[in-house]
Amino acid sequence: MLEELKEQIYEANMELPKRGLVTYTWGNVSGMDRERGLFVIKPSGVDYNKLRPEDMIVVDLEGNKVEGEMNPSSDTPTHLELYKAFPEIGGIVHTHSPFATSWAQAGRGIPCYGTTHADYFHGEIPCARNLTAEEIEDGYEKNTGLVIAETFRGKNPAHVPAVLCKNHGPFTWGKDGAEAVHYAVVLEEITKMNLMTELLNPTADNRTPQCMQDKHFLRKHGPHAYYGQGK
Amino acid sequence: MLEELKEQIYEANMELPKRGLVTYTWGNVSGMDRERGLFVIKPSGVDYNKLRPEDMIVVDLEGNKVEGEMNPSSDTPTHLELYKAFPEIGGIVHTHSPFATSWAQAGRGIPCYGTTHADYFHGEIPCARNLTAEEIEDGYEKNTGLVIAETFRGKNPAHVPAVLCKNHGPFTWGKDGAEAVHYAVVLEEITKMNLMTELLNPTADNRTPQCMQDKHFLRKHGPHAYYGQGK
Amino acid sequence: MLEELKEQIYEANMELPKRGLVTYTWGNVSGMDRERGLFVIKPSGVDYNKLRPEDMIVVDLEGNKVEGEMNPSSDTPTHLELYKAFPEIGGIVHTHSPFATSWAQAGRGIPCYGTTHADYFHGEIPCARNLTAEEIEDGYEKNTGLVIAETFRGKNPAHVPAVLCKNHGPFTWGKDGAEAVHYAVVLEEITKMNLMTELLNPTADNRTPQCMQDKHFLRKHGPHAYYGQGK
Amino acid sequence: MLEELKEQIYEANMELPKRGLVTYTWGNVSGMDRERGLFVIKPSGVDYNKLRPEDMIVVDLEGNKVEGEMNPSSDTPTHLELYKAFPEIGGIVHTHSPFATSWAQAGRGIPCYGTTHADYFHGEIPCARNLTAEEIEDGYEKNTGLVIAETFRGKNPAHVPAVLCKNHGPFTWGKDGAEAVHYAVVLEEITKMNLMTELLNPTADNRTPQCMQDKHFLRKHGPHAYYGQGK
Repeated sequence: MLEELKEQIYEANMELPKRGLVTYTWGNVSGMDRERGLFVIKPSGVDYNKLRPEDMIVVDLEGNKVEGEMNPSSDTPTHLELYKAFPEIGGIVHTHSPFATSWAQAGRGIPCYGTTHADYFHGEIPCARNLTAEEIEDGYEKNTGLVIAETFRGKNPAHVPAVLCKNHGPFTWGKDGAEAVHYAVVLEEITKMNLMTELLNPTADNRTPQCMQDKHFLRKHGPHAYYGQGK
Repeated sequence: MLEELKEQIYEANMELPKRGLVTYTWGNVSGMDRERGLFVIKPSGVDYNKLRPEDMIVVDLEGNKVEGEMNPSSDTPTHLELYKAFPEIGGIVHTHSPFATSWAQAGRGIPCYGTTHADYFHGEIPCARNLTAEEIEDGYEKNTGLVIAETFRGKNPAHVPAVLCKNHGPFTWGKDGAEAVHYAVVLEEITKMNLMTELLNPTADNRTPQCMQDKHFLRKHGPHAYYGQGK
Repeated sequence: MLEELKEQIYEANMELPKRGLVTYTWGNVSGMDRERGLFVIKPSGVDYNKLRPEDMIVVDLEGNKVEGEMNPSSDTPTHLELYKAFPEIGGIVHTHSPFATSWAQAGRGIPCYGTTHADYFHGEIPCARNLTAEEIEDGYEKNTGLVIAETFRGKNPAHVPAVLCKNHGPFTWGKDGAEAVHYAVVLEEITKMNLMTELLNPTADNRTPQCMQDKHFLRKHGPHAYYGQGK
Repeated sequence: MLEELKEQIYEANMELPKRGLVTYTWGNVSGMDRERGLFVIKPSGVDYNKLRPEDMIVVDLEGNKVEGEMNPSSDTPTHLELYKAFPEIGGIVHTHSPFATSWAQAGRGIPCYGTTHADYFHGEIPCARNLTAEEIEDGYEKNTGLVIAETFRGKNPAHVPAVLCKNHGPFTWGKDGAEAVHYAVVLEEITKMNLMTELLNPTADNRTPQCMQDKHFLRKHGPHAYYGQGK
């Protein structure tokens, strides 16, 4: 079942090591079939060079494994909560990519220092708070998803398709797995450049003016976009 | 038309990902035929691994598309203004290469800390100011070119063939697309080394003496150059 | 003798340059056969691209060479002391990998800033003290092993399978050579991210909460582990 | 003439881009035949991927070109002065490798922070002073060599086979071109690690104890060396 989606999500997972975003098995991509209410996710702890499309696990929105021989990613309950909280998204990525993870470990949201950021993310990329001891005890991975959703209360997850989890690492999302991977790559580039930016100018007087942020985001997104070759 | 120039500019564009200067589609090269008053530029948002020489777009100095099926780079009006302001140049490159972009995001010109810089750039590489809200509204890409030209008033763009646009990234130029790419590669190396230099010596007492800057620039450029195998 | 172990340790050694952990000959892996009381180790100063499985040297727990034409790694007495001090381990790695070595040169233990660390190491990775002049004189490599053992007095080396030697570099260990290499790769990733974390947040208020460290370590290790596909 | 030496020096030059030490043509290796009083050096400004063994230029100790169609490296007079000042050396390398050049641009000698340094260099690697305006005018490249020789007055160039030229970059040397390249690679690794070391510990209380420096240098060099497989 869901052979095409499995193939897509397999390809999206394989893009992670190819783009230098994962060491060993430290990442996973899932993709959602909204009509059927099922999503497909990487099995837990499997080497990328042994992964096959048919190894993808099918999970329903109650978190039950519907198809697949192996255990799904241990982060499956986080993906599940994000699909429930953000109905417009169709793909999710989690990695420990080094630059984005360093910002997460620093416990800091990512300020908009330039147009590379503004082309993809409209405003600061937030850093979600730590879970409490109780939240960890009660269901660590599920509550990770709920805390991300809490972080986006009042924000549009399509305009800022990424979050950092404090002391952990990034999640990104998009209309499908491939787009979520694209944002994960962009996030890693931005967090690399923003770290160097702060080393070069620690005064923090160099934020991108709001009008410039709006210009760049809107020339690529929404009804008046003119970047690229149209839809 | 302009088949040879298209081929050259295609090759110059392909050099950008090969040299690690672009992620996804974040860069473009153009090249000018001064006799005909036409330039050739990469189409907007096209993947480098799908790009072909015949995809290059031909544009005239009024900004009209003269040939090509796709939309030209969204930065085309910036290239146009630079070709008008700097009559001696024949090629332009824009990238979001990480080290140069970090300096642009920091809003800082690049001081001459060594001979690698002095071999190619005679003096500081300037950082152009942000556009005003009005300039962004009136024609963002065109005004980006005008602000770069303003930054070089009284300066020789052939002696400092690069600029940083604040909160955005670098532009470089040269006698043709290949030379402009060469300078983009050099700029990335310099900005990497200069960041590390400042981390090692934050006192800023380590600028290159002017006589040493002159020596290095002039042994590679001008009538008394003796580096290389001559012309 | 020990052909299978030699092959394993050859493969583990070859993984070091493949993973970018060694320049020239700056690393070595050994593996232990506990039943026979013999271990196998790389010969000293041999290029990785000339190394063959049959070049591995067999050494006993008194430090005598039992088989092999070449000299064993000059770090052999350190490996020997670690096998004696930590009876549960079956493989040891030493490298000068750049990020881990930088922390060793800084003379600092590695704080737990995130879950990448907590997934593999339960608490800070210690930095062992410098040897005294007498210890260097009396038997530098042997005393290096004894000082590491001293550093772990009261600690479980299976829960923190790595150490930094001050002004020198890292050692890691595991149930076999392959696992020890795995930890050496992880250590390099962690030390890279932790350096960047400190640059982004020098206030040191961003340690990983203990409950989160416990959660991540215990979901991968011990009787209640649920990461991966089980044993 | 000197076909074997040309082949060796060609191979040593080609090692520079392979090891990531040069961008474009920013480096050169020479090698000396002491019996004949002739040295062989890379031609100036030639692309590495077009270089051939027969392109190497033969120069005598008065600086006359003895054989070769092209111009020798513009740094030839520097190599010449080093061969005259340091009679024990047989090969010289100059690069603009990024980490070593950053230290040169910072105008700082390289302290010994660890055994990676001590294994190859016995004590600090010095940074030579800037040339005066007169020295630049009178013969820039020749005086660069003389200032390096001045820097080593009272020091043994075989024990510290590298120097940084302020605001310029590194030179390394050895018994032949291959050994000089080996030291250039080691220098780049050390300068990378030492930069990170200072970011992690700016207090500078982490120099390698002298007894440890001596131990590491002497276990690899001199009559009591025991690292490797002997001579």
